[in-house]
Parts: sequence; structure tokens; C-alpha cells
Amino acid sequence: MWIDLRSDTVTQPTDAMRQAMASAEVGDDVYGDDPTVNKLEALASEMFEKEAALFVPSGTFGNQVAIMSHTRRGDEILIGDECHILMHEVGGAAVLSGVQTRPFPTDKGQADVKALEKMIRGDDIHYPNTGLICMENAHSSGTAIALENMQAVYRLAKSKNIPVHIDGARIFNAATALGVDPKEIAACGDSVNVCLSKGLCAPIGSLLLGSSDYIRTARKNRKLMGGGLRQAGIIAAAGIIALTEMTARLKEDHDHAKYLADRLEEIESCHVLRDRLDINMVFFTLDETVISESVLVSGLNNEKFRINGQEDGLYRFVTNRDVSAEAIDKLIETMKTLIVKASH
Amino acid sequence: MWIDLRSDTVTQPTDAMRQAMASAEVGDDVYGDDPTVNKLEALASEMFEKEAALFVPSGTFGNQVAIMSHTRRGDEILIGDECHILMHEVGGAAVLSGVQTRPFPTDKGQADVKALEKMIRGDDIHYPNTGLICMENAHSSGTAIALENMQAVYRLAKSKNIPVHIDGARIFNAATALGVDPKEIAACGDSVNVCLSKGLCAPIGSLLLGSSDYIRTARKNRKLMGGGLRQAGIIAAAGIIALTEMTARLKEDHDHAKYLADRLEEIESCHVLRDRLDINMVFFTLDETVISESVLVSGLNNEKFRINGQEDGLYRFVTNRDVSAEAIDKLIETMKTLIVKASH
Amino acid sequence: MWIDLRSDTVTQPTDAMRQAMASAEVGDDVYGDDPTVNKLEALASEMFEKEAALFVPSGTFGNQVAIMSHTRRGDEILIGDECHILMHEVGGAAVLSGVQTRPFPTDKGQADVKALEKMIRGDDIHYPNTGLICMENAHSSGTAIALENMQAVYRLAKSKNIPVHIDGARIFNAATALGVDPKEIAACGDSVNVCLSKGLCAPIGSLLLGSSDYIRTARKNRKLMGGGLRQAGIIAAAGIIALTEMTARLKEDHDHAKYLADRLEEIESCHVLRDRLDINMVFFTLDETVISESVLVSGLNNEKFRINGQEDGLYRFVTNRDVSAEAIDKLIETMKTLIVKASH
Amino acid sequence: MWIDLRSDTVTQPTDAMRQAMASAEVGDDVYGDDPTVNKLEALASEMFEKEAALFVPSGTFGNQVAIMSHTRRGDEILIGDECHILMHEVGGAAVLSGVQTRPFPTDKGQADVKALEKMIRGDDIHYPNTGLICMENAHSSGTAIALENMQAVYRLAKSKNIPVHIDGARIFNAATALGVDPKEIAACGDSVNVCLSKGLCAPIGSLLLGSSDYIRTARKNRKLMGGGLRQAGIIAAAGIIALTEMTARLKEDHDHAKYLADRLEEIESCHVLRDRLDINMVFFTLDETVISESVLVSGLNNEKFRINGQEDGLYRFVTNRDVSAEAIDKLIETMKTLIVKASH
Repeated sequence: MWIDLRSDTVTQPTDAMRQAMASAEVGDDVYGDDPTVNKLEALASEMFEKEAALFVPSGTFGNQVAIMSHTRRGDEILIGDECHILMHEVGGAAVLSGVQTRPFPTDKGQADVKALEKMIRGDDIHYPNTGLICMENAHSSGTAIALENMQAVYRLAKSKNIPVHIDGARIFNAATALGVDPKEIAACGDSVNVCLSKGLCAPIGSLLLGSSDYIRTARKNRKLMGGGLRQAGIIAAAGIIALTEMTARLKEDHDHAKYLADRLEEIESCHVLRDRLDINMVFFTLDETVISESVLVSGLNNEKFRINGQEDGLYRFVTNRDVSAEAIDKLIETMKTLIVKASH
Repeated sequence: MWIDLRSDTVTQPTDAMRQAMASAEVGDDVYGDDPTVNKLEALASEMFEKEAALFVPSGTFGNQVAIMSHTRRGDEILIGDECHILMHEVGGAAVLSGVQTRPFPTDKGQADVKALEKMIRGDDIHYPNTGLICMENAHSSGTAIALENMQAVYRLAKSKNIPVHIDGARIFNAATALGVDPKEIAACGDSVNVCLSKGLCAPIGSLLLGSSDYIRTARKNRKLMGGGLRQAGIIAAAGIIALTEMTARLKEDHDHAKYLADRLEEIESCHVLRDRLDINMVFFTLDETVISESVLVSGLNNEKFRINGQEDGLYRFVTNRDVSAEAIDKLIETMKTLIVKASH
Repeated sequence: MWIDLRSDTVTQPTDAMRQAMASAEVGDDVYGDDPTVNKLEALASEMFEKEAALFVPSGTFGNQVAIMSHTRRGDEILIGDECHILMHEVGGAAVLSGVQTRPFPTDKGQADVKALEKMIRGDDIHYPNTGLICMENAHSSGTAIALENMQAVYRLAKSKNIPVHIDGARIFNAATALGVDPKEIAACGDSVNVCLSKGLCAPIGSLLLGSSDYIRTARKNRKLMGGGLRQAGIIAAAGIIALTEMTARLKEDHDHAKYLADRLEEIESCHVLRDRLDINMVFFTLDETVISESVLVSGLNNEKFRINGQEDGLYRFVTNRDVSAEAIDKLIETMKTLIVKASH
Repeated sequence: MWIDLRSDTVTQPTDAMRQAMASAEVGDDVYGDDPTVNKLEALASEMFEKEAALFVPSGTFGNQVAIMSHTRRGDEILIGDECHILMHEVGGAAVLSGVQTRPFPTDKGQADVKALEKMIRGDDIHYPNTGLICMENAHSSGTAIALENMQAVYRLAKSKNIPVHIDGARIFNAATALGVDPKEIAACGDSVNVCLSKGLCAPIGSLLLGSSDYIRTARKNRKLMGGGLRQAGIIAAAGIIALTEMTARLKEDHDHAKYLADRLEEIESCHVLRDRLDINMVFFTLDETVISESVLVSGLNNEKFRINGQEDGLYRFVTNRDVSAEAIDKLIETMKTLIVKASH
């Protein structure tokens, strides 16, 4: 069996999920008739203490429909300088919502609140309106943002009447790392997007949460973007299990990440970025002269490990439900062997 | 059990589909790793004799990503004057692709080819470029468009180097009604969008088909629009059954529609539009003085029939897998009773 | 000297205009400091009995900023089926404002009000919002729309809370033809766009008129679209003369058009469309076997007449300040000579 | 007479310009018939050694049509982090062109070329295409960017096949400050936008320059954006004088800026940012406890000096043709008097 460290998006649905999907009661969700989708949305609303929820096909979809529903064409949105919306959503905000993206400085996701405040636009004919502030927690850089930082951003935004969206694709990872209830994170935004896939193992789907009025707007925009599904209860059934049974298991992924970090440090010239080790991601550098990227990727591939190449000079290994301590041990041994070979 | 005549989108997945979904082999489709999605896409390519296929979350998504992938911002697209893209996709083409919609005249979907030809733009600084022609078959008005008409449009388009997209949400209904192979319809366009849901009963999903280059562009645009799913094989598994086992059953829906039409005509003042009776839809008028829309809708609802109110003065009843001849008989009796009551 | 019948956009500024431009008092209009622009805007507000006015660089600019300021991205706008916004503005509404265009049927600009009413969208998740209705008077087809027709459209729109924009590029021509005050036409819309160029002879510029709130929004959007000019008083000075001294002269252009029509009918096989002869445009057909388009265009060109080729099978000759009765006589003689030559 | 230090956009046209405008030979520029516009475009092409030029109504218009003509919807554009396009064009790029803005770090306009290189996107389904790099010289922060820095950016861009646009609203100021020919700056981009207004004193207008193919595209996009003007030769006539007679005078503005800086430093607690003193702008701070912004602005206003309030804590005084050394002396005296008053 393959061990896949490229992401936690690769996780397989559990047997319980497959069972639930096979027997789900479904209806036409465009008409609001799908009982399983309705149940999932109600469950999530309660968990996150938001008035309403909307099931969407992906995390990117959730963020993009969130932006469309908060803003007017021509607004400027302020987003963290390394966040997923800016870096990994194909520039969608400009296309789908016609908004200008302006990144605010962060330290691995933690907002520089003072710098952010200066970036909020005043009233001038040359300026776009500041229409939205976006945060991400857990952050793509592998960190969990402190609640205090998020609260400071939210207070600032509210004092200026600017809505806040939280990309909570890995909000349960953040809550686990911070030791808080996920709804405390969600309380730092007017809307929050939550993935059922990734570490929670549902095959498909995310949830956008916010006020009832906001979600009504988002529901219409979801239709426009082609995300109005029919018998979506099939996949929502897995989402219910993700929310109710899978969140506690994330601690395991985090522990495995720390274990993987420790073991990686056994390898000479392998430098783990310990300040980014809050969740299930391990970022590290490995000297190209010790082993080149292509040799490492293909060598591991031959031994049934899937990894991505470097991004910005960093490797990222992601633990997930299918990455056990034993798999990590085998991975490290394989890497060591490959490095020895490469040095000849 | 409820009988739902609002649409064929309400159909439930079959037991075989549920079984297939529960046991589907899956992977991360954003990485191209989902074997079931890959199998579905390959199967569809072959059936429709197009180079490549792309799994998308809905029919609207399929049409919109098709438009985005054919056009450049600022193009004008020529579309039939009552078609789904213009009428029922929330104005998405202007938002998502920045294209101007200009409807060409049709007679229940049949293009007025001469009028269409005149609408193609020449070279003038005041004109947008004609970037796409869209047809729909079967057509939302309940008709199957003759192949000859589609071929004439396609020839015209090709002579002007304009791409053609076919909204084939109900292409198998059209093929059934026309007695042709679906790929003959697909041959009248550079791209075609095919729904797995509706009469074919899959819970979720459509396929966009076209050349390899085109589908590569569409795959990127799908990601931008938030339609890159992860373990999509779960729902693709139902799609495979839809394509391989369910297309033959559409004749039954069509027969039921004709039977329903005959029986509706027993009701005085009920006028069936027989020139729109090609597929599984029955359009009719019913004199408001005989029974009002609200009384009919709620009266049927009380007897566990779901119908929509009128659109443009017409009722539309749609047959599907859950609408048997017996259900139709019971429906007619219920309508008759309600009308008698209403006359008192 | 050349006689130019291609359009009334070709008119030269008068000597009085040149004088006024040379001596205009100017300031920076982005700061609101240009006294001549301010004077022009105030003058127009008063003439058209609208609260506020905005100077814009062109008629297309005025229409497009009007649409952007009335609508939200994703709205549908209903526009007459042959109007300038749909046909001659490069598809700008979809690009600049992200709105879907849906044409309503007109008879040479006169709205089919019943058909229009049916096109207004109700509340349905598949529908875009009907965000604007646009009319054009005088209409590009050479007609002046009856006030009654415009009033009926406006009443309908108001009953549905939909704003109305009037493309009044040739509103003074319409008023002249109808024998009404231009403000009566302007009263049929929430906004109206008025050209200072064309028959009024100003070199550059249009005015958008509407409520104070609306014009404030439009002023911001004008900046976004790059239409915030600096010492615009230079050209506004010509606009003041256009509004105060040039509107009365349009009757002369209309009389010349009728005279030109009469004289064209002397030519065998030349058929004038008399139902489109309300303003300064003469539409006619001329049998290609009598004289081909290219021979006519180049033959006239050799004699210093500029004309356009046919559009949709029709020639359009436009009278303007530089087209005198004598010029028309010379034109007809030249055409006759060319036809005789062509028949050899 | 008022002395206006808010910007160089406030400059009045010279008598020679007024004369030229009054007597300009004009035609309909949408048809390409305006000889004065054609002359101006040819003149600029030659000056900047670009194949073609396009007259546009404003600097913002020129930048925005430049972006639209280089990019495809969904591209990402990399722009300096304080540049005009990002900060002062109302977020237009997202609305008009549907592109995502991502700022690269600069030191007062000087690109951090290494950081920029890292930001260029590779081939990944999550990434937008890097469609354009924009530089600005002279830069809004008051600096002239060294040619070497611009050349390094251009070499990088060319090695990656990315087009480069230069916002040269004040390119002649930059050339004056650097002591180079403006065409050397223009050589660092595929397109360049040049203002005729500002220090050169033309009342209206900018020029976009680039290859013939590019300008053909831009001409069409100019029409779409509503910037196709008619007898634009009126204002182009002033533009010809701006290019041929006014560029040498910018040195005077720069000298006056330095003189103004020196004199401001006589004021205690007034701190001039000498590292931003390359062109005709003087940035400085003035302790709020010495004199408040509102008192300074209104006090100077009473003495017929117009200044803007602070932006980001900085005052900016701009010298221009109407700001003589005597005016500067009077300004300083007035400021001193106001400060004395304020201290009581």
C-alpha cells in the first residue's frame, strides 16, 4: 500500500462513511429537499454557533462564494500574504468577484495588526472600498494562529464596519493545536469556511457558515457558480461523520508530525522548521548537494511513498490517517538509504 | 411515498448506484489520482467520440466552465432564446466569463439559421467578437432538436471559425426521441455537456467533453471555479452506472409522458402542448377559473404529489423513474377530484 | 472640401466653440475645481430637470458608467433588441459591469411592453435579478420613440422597482422630431445620457444625468474606468455652446434628411425606408446589380463624399451641419453618374 | 492668484496650447481621421522608439487599457507595492481586466528583483498565470528608479516570457532626474504609459505606447472602455506642445522642489524626507503638536495656498509651472506665521 505524504486531501473515506453514504436518505438539495444535507448544515451551525450553514463542493468553492457574498465588484480585500486564497486559488477572487487583492504582512499567518490597520482605505475618489478582511487558521504555513491575534483583527474590522472571513479549511487542526473550541475561532469572523475532507477524511465537501441573511445570499451565488447539487446527501452523510466522529483523531496526526520531525532531524543537513510545527505538516530543507529533489521524489516513489517536490525551497510532508508511526519509521530508513546511495 | 413531478432532477440513486458508491476505489482527483473518475471520463470520451472528458459537479457548472474555456472576456456568445444558459443559470456567463449574451431566435429550440448567420459579427471597432454559439438538445421546452438543424448551425459556425457548445443535459433523452446515437448529436459541437443526474438517476455530476487541449483548459478553469473535488470517485461510480445501464430506460419516461398527456386531455379545459412532447416533459395550460394554481399545487401536495407552479402561464409535469403508469392514474383521479371540489 | 455622410459624429466644432475652448476658465476636475465643467453640469441638470450631471468622455462611456452605477454584478439588464448598448459598445456591459444582457423585442425601438413585462424576473434561485431596463431615443434605427411608449415602459419599471436608463445620445433629435421638450423624454428614466457631439457639433463629450446619490456613485465609477479628466473645462466650454446654441439647428438636419430621401427616390431601384425617417438619418437599399457597394463607396470617395458600406443590407446616410442642400444635390448627381457608368 | 501645491495635475494649459487647440485641424478619431491625433501618436512613437501609440483620456485609463491588452482574465499581475495602479486606481484592474494583483516589495519603487523572481508562478493547477509585471517611473513616492533596476526587472521578465508595462505618468521627470533619454526608460518595458498633463501642462490626455499589434488590441479595448473620442485633435494639439516644448521645463520644478525642501527645514519640527526628493515632490512630516493638519490646511487656504492633508502621516507639496521661487518664499513665511499663531 502506498503512503501518501503530499497532503491530507488524499485521505480515503472510512468504512463508516462508505456505509453512511450507501444508505443516506436524499432529496433534491436545489429545492432544499435533501434531509441529510439539511441535517449536516444544522449540525454545523450548532457546532460553530453561526446562524446558518451551506454545503459546498470544495474548500476553494467555499472561500470564493464567501468572498462573492461579502463584497461588491471593485472592493479591495485584505488577505494574509501567504494565505491559500491568494496563493492557491488560481486568482479566482478577481475573476469571480471582481475584487482587488491586497496582502497584509503576517508572520507565518499571524497578522501585523498595525500594518493591517494602515491598509484600510479611507474616503478618497482614488481608493477602492475595503470590502473584506480574510484570515486563515490553521495557516497554510503549518501554524495555528493565536486567538488573541484573530480577535485583534476582528475588533479592528468591526470598528471599521468591515466584514471578516475565516478560511478554516483546517479549523479543527487549529483548535486541536490551540486547545480551544473551534467555535472560539469561528467567533473571530462573520463567516467561516470549514473542510470536511482533509484530516477528517470525508471524500468531498466543505461548509460555509454565517448569518442567515448572508447564507441566503451565498446560496444564490452557489447556484450561479454551478455548485447547486442535487442528491448531495450522499456526500453530506460522510460529512456528518467527519464532524461528529473524526475531529478527535487530529491530535494523532499532530503527534505523528512531531515524531516525523524528530526523526527527520536524524538526517544530517535536514533542517526542520520547528516554528511551523503546530499541526500535521512538517516543513524542512534538505541540502540539494546531499540529495537532489528529483532523486528523492523518484526514489521514495519507487518504495511507494508519494511526496511533492519543494515549494519556495521547502519540502512539506503532511501526516494523515494513513500515515502511522511505522510508516514514518520506514520513510526515514528509506530516505537514509537514498541519501547514502546519492553520495556515491 | 411521494410522487415528484417537478423535475427529473429529483430522481433517487438506484440500489446498484448506492452499492457502487460504497465500494468505489478512489483517490485525489485534483492530483488526477482517482481511478473511478478516470474510468468515467474515459468511458464518456469513447461513447461520445470526443478526445477527452472532465467530471464536474453540476450541469450549470459544466456549461459555465465550457463557456469560460471557449471564450475571452468581452466576447459575445450567441445562444438560443429560451435556453437554459440564458434563462436558468443566474446570469452566470457575464459574471464568470465576462461575455455578452445575445439570443438568436429559435422555434422551441430549433435555430433560425438564417437569422443566426446575420448575427455573427464582422470586423468593426464597435463590435465584440463572436466567441461561441450554444445549442441545447433536448431543449428545455420539451423538444428534441432535429440533427439537420444542429448540423446546419455547426457548418455555419465552422465556416466562420466559431466554436460551438452543446448543452446536452438531456442528450440521451434527445437521442432516444430522435432515434439516433448520442454521439451524432455530440458531433454537432466542439464541446458538449452531459448530465448524469436527471433521468439517468445519478445523484450528482455532469461531464464536459471536447478536444484534449480544450479539456486541459477546462480542468484549470474548473479549479478556479472551485470544482476541483478530492475523492470524487464516490459519485463518479454512480455516473458509470448512469452511462452504462440507465440510458435505455429513458424511453419509459417518454412513454409515460405521452400517457400522461393523453390522460390530462380527459380534463376539460386542460390543453396539452403536443408540439413539445418529445421527451419526458408535459407542458399544459389549465384554466384558472376551473382551478387556481395555488389550490392545485396544495391540493396535490396533500395527496403526496409534488408539482411546480406555472412558469410563463404553463404547467410542466416531468416523468422520471419514480413516476409509474399507476402513479399517473392516481394523479389524474386526484386532479379531477380537486377540480370538482374547486367548482363548488 | 469633403462631404461626410457616414455619421453626425464627424461634425467639426464651430468657430464659437473654438473661441470658447481657447479662453475657457479651467481647473482640476478630479478635485471638482473646474468652473466650466461645473457650469456645464449645472446647466444640463436644469435643462433636463435631474438633480445632478456628470461630464464623461464619450457616449459609450456614459452608457457604460450608467449601467455600472445602477447594477450589481450578476444582474440581468433588459435592453431594446437593436439598441446601441447591445450592438455597438463592444460587449462592454458584460466586461465592465458583469451583467447579462437580454434584449426585449422592439419595433424600430418602440418597446413591446407586454413582452417586456414577461421578461422581468421573479424570485427563483435559477434567475438573475432584473437590474435595469434601457431605452434609446432617438433610436439608432433612425426613429423617434413616442413619449407614450417610453412612459409605459417607465411605469412598468417603477411598478417593479427596476431603474431605467435612457441612452439619449440623440435626445435633442428625438425631441425635435416629436415636438416635445427634451426633459419630457428624460422624465421617462432615472438616468439619461446626452451627447454634446454628433449634431450639436461639440468635439468631445457627453453628460450623464440622474439623482444626486446616483451621480455620486457614477463619479466614483468614472474614476475607476479612467474617465476622471483634469482641465476638462476646455472641452466642456464647447459643450455649453452645444446645449445653449446648437439644439435648434437639428431641425435643419432633419429637413435635409427628408430632402435627401426625396432625391434618392429619383434613382431607380433605390428604396428609402420612410418609416425610419424621423431624424437626420436616411436608410435605403440599392440593388447590387445596379451598382455594387464597393463601386459606390469608392466612386463617391473619388468625388469627395465619404459614406459607409451597408450594414445588414442597408445604406445609411447621415445629414449634419456640413451637409447642405447643395451638397445633397451634388451627391445625387454623382450617384446617378456612377450608376450610369456601372451599367456599361 | 492661488498657488496650488496639491499636485502637478492642477497645471493650467499654456497660451501656446490654447492657441493650438483653437486652431487644430480635427477629424473623427474613431474612424482614424483626426490628423492632429495621428500626428501626436506618430511623434510619440518616434520619441520613445515604440512602433505605435494610442491617445487615451487619462493616466488611469492608459494604465488600465494597458493591463487589459496584455492579460487574460484570471492572470496574476505583479506590481510594485506602493505604485499608483495598486493604490490609486480604485481597484480597477480586478473589475476591468479580472486579474489578481500581487504586489512585489520595493524600496521607494526600486524592485527587490530576487523577491520578484520568487513570485513568478510555475506550472501548477492551483496557480494563476503570471501575466504581467508593472513598474512605475518616476515613482509616486517621489523617486526616480535607477535604469539598472528597471533593466534587471525587464531581463527577468523576458527570460520568463512575461510582458512588462511601465507607468510613465511622470517619465519625463524620471528622465530629467536620472539624466537619461526617456526612451531608455521606455526600453525597459513592452508598453509604457506617458502623461501629457501634470508637469507638461496639457489639460487632458495620456499616450500608451507599444508594438503595433499590441496597440491594435489596445485601440479596440479603448473603445470598449468608452475612450474612443471624436474630434480629439483639439486636446491632442496641446499634447504636441507638451511633448515638444515642455519637457525641458521640468528641471525648474525639480529645482524648486529642492529649494522648497531647504526652506521647509528652516521650520523647527519639520522633517523633509530627502531620500524622496528626486523630482517635483517634497514629502515631509510636521509635528501635530506644533500645528495640526486642519489648522495648517485652512490657514494656508486663507492665504490662497491649496495643499492636501497628510496621507500615511506625510505631507506632500508638489511644485509645478505655477509655483515660482517667490511663491515658495511666501508659502514658508505664511507657514511660519501660522505656527507662531498656533503656539499661542
